[in-house]
Amino acid sequence: MHAITIREPGDPEVLEWREQPTPEPGRGEVAIDVAAAGINRADLAQRQGSYPPPPGASELPGLECSGTVAALGKGVTNWQVGDRVCALLAGGGYAERVIAPATQVLPIPEGVDLVEAAALPEVVCTVWSNVVQEGGLSRDQVLLVHGGSGGIGTCAIQIGRALGARVAATAGSEASLRLCAELGAETTVSYRDGDFVAEVKEMGGANVILDNMGASYLDRNLSALAQDGHLAVIGLQGGRKAELDLGKMLVKRIRVSALGLRGRPLDGPNGKAGIVADVRQRVWPMIERGEVRPVVHSTYPMSEAARAHELLEAGGVHGKVLLTTG
Amino acid sequence: MHAITIREPGDPEVLEWREQPTPEPGRGEVAIDVAAAGINRADLAQRQGSYPPPPGASELPGLECSGTVAALGKGVTNWQVGDRVCALLAGGGYAERVIAPATQVLPIPEGVDLVEAAALPEVVCTVWSNVVQEGGLSRDQVLLVHGGSGGIGTCAIQIGRALGARVAATAGSEASLRLCAELGAETTVSYRDGDFVAEVKEMGGANVILDNMGASYLDRNLSALAQDGHLAVIGLQGGRKAELDLGKMLVKRIRVSALGLRGRPLDGPNGKAGIVADVRQRVWPMIERGEVRPVVHSTYPMSEAARAHELLEAGGVHGKVLLTTG
Repeated sequence: MHAITIREPGDPEVLEWREQPTPEPGRGEVAIDVAAAGINRADLAQRQGSYPPPPGASELPGLECSGTVAALGKGVTNWQVGDRVCALLAGGGYAERVIAPATQVLPIPEGVDLVEAAALPEVVCTVWSNVVQEGGLSRDQVLLVHGGSGGIGTCAIQIGRALGARVAATAGSEASLRLCAELGAETTVSYRDGDFVAEVKEMGGANVILDNMGASYLDRNLSALAQDGHLAVIGLQGGRKAELDLGKMLVKRIRVSALGLRGRPLDGPNGKAGIVADVRQRVWPMIERGEVRPVVHSTYPMSEAARAHELLEAGGVHGKVLLTTG
Repeated sequence: MHAITIREPGDPEVLEWREQPTPEPGRGEVAIDVAAAGINRADLAQRQGSYPPPPGASELPGLECSGTVAALGKGVTNWQVGDRVCALLAGGGYAERVIAPATQVLPIPEGVDLVEAAALPEVVCTVWSNVVQEGGLSRDQVLLVHGGSGGIGTCAIQIGRALGARVAATAGSEASLRLCAELGAETTVSYRDGDFVAEVKEMGGANVILDNMGASYLDRNLSALAQDGHLAVIGLQGGRKAELDLGKMLVKRIRVSALGLRGRPLDGPNGKAGIVADVRQRVWPMIERGEVRPVVHSTYPMSEAARAHELLEAGGVHGKVLLTTG
């Protein structure tokens, strides 16, 4: 098979479409003939050498894909060869074939086409595990989504709305803010010249914040939280180190979490299998009812992964960028 | 009745034993004739004016007491006049009589005398809500307790051991470290010249840290945590502001919480009633089996509350200081 390899840490041109050994499924695993793979910011960090794959994972990039089940490892009974699926991966999605634990495979939701479905697994599992399983977001609460027009953000706004929460979102351009509003954000704030703390306080403060910025927003995020609020940091686009005011946290009884998805164990209370099962039960019906849809900015042939990375690095992408094998 | 009042924010001598109106129980509340009240660090902060009572709470200090039920408000069916009880309070415990919501009252555990029981409610509820309900500590995990010889610390070590966890504790003097070891800490570290990060890493890292220091320990606490670890900050004796490394948090998937008990709502998912009910079901049996016992440093007549505050401020107290009305 062919796959995208990382020649050495560096700029997008280190991504090369090369012949690679075809992987075989082990016990409890499924082989998938990839139709499309989603690009995540973590892939850019991996390409640059700052986010190595967890032990045992494929060295190839790619944290989510869609495709067709090609082979089953021993002990897999809930999938069949030929099933159209999407999957949460620890790596290896930028390839013609990939191996996934059977517990991280999901059916293609009704109403979503096979390629689009590659935009779902990483994004939906990240949003669900952080906003609902950790943050405990519920009906009538306020969710603040930073980077609302990106892959994660577009999904978080819709899931927040589908849960009956009120959503505020930040984004950079007029077009991005408009997209956030179309997806259901009742308050949209420019991160260039807006004041998200003031805007969110007018809504009563955020019960949950999904944050991709890290350091540069830390103190303002604490200010924007309501009593008993939860700050879920999932990215460090604004740096990793900032002053934390624990006094502010104690007064409001705040929780801060920073939980990546990729390195989690398969099983156990924080494991991927539990997240995927919960997503299938709770989010897949939202998608099938049309309340949540994948937002795809553009699609590239997988061999042109370098161009797709350049696009994502340039900023201004609305939703997800996908790579197709077809 | 008589009660300790705070004449004005200041040193211990602002505490005055004065005639006060006897409070009456409202709907769902219980009046308790106080036998003893526990002193907490929060009381010192309240006396100094930096920790005002939450809205609706008594202006008088005192977050926990033991005593005898003296009267019932409307709708209270689970307690009777004459019951020997202890209670978690939002304030008012330094008094001959205090009002508590019926859901925050607990029976005196078998084997504990009425005065000693005043050392339990605030301490046990703080430890349980932070270490178990938030931190998820379970058997064979590692718990690091800072300030292990204090009121909270002595309780946390014992609850950790009773759960089957391995406990490390920090303290300041040889005698304090010895107490921690006697209570079940397998590793004890002097905070004067020891390296708790190194010691706890040798145990595999801490799954949960109960921290009363705040800023001064923040970064070392992150270093001492194991993968998926939880830092529960409950005090700021080492300051409130410090640099937080969110990158370190993301790599280890760390959660940081700062959850005071006093201002929590009575009901709801984070409410006091739920904590008290869980404590009664899970911790009271540990006390009755002798696995957890109140550690009382000394007892003062309530009218001498100022002297007791001086003692706690001087440091080196092992366990709790109590005030008795008797």
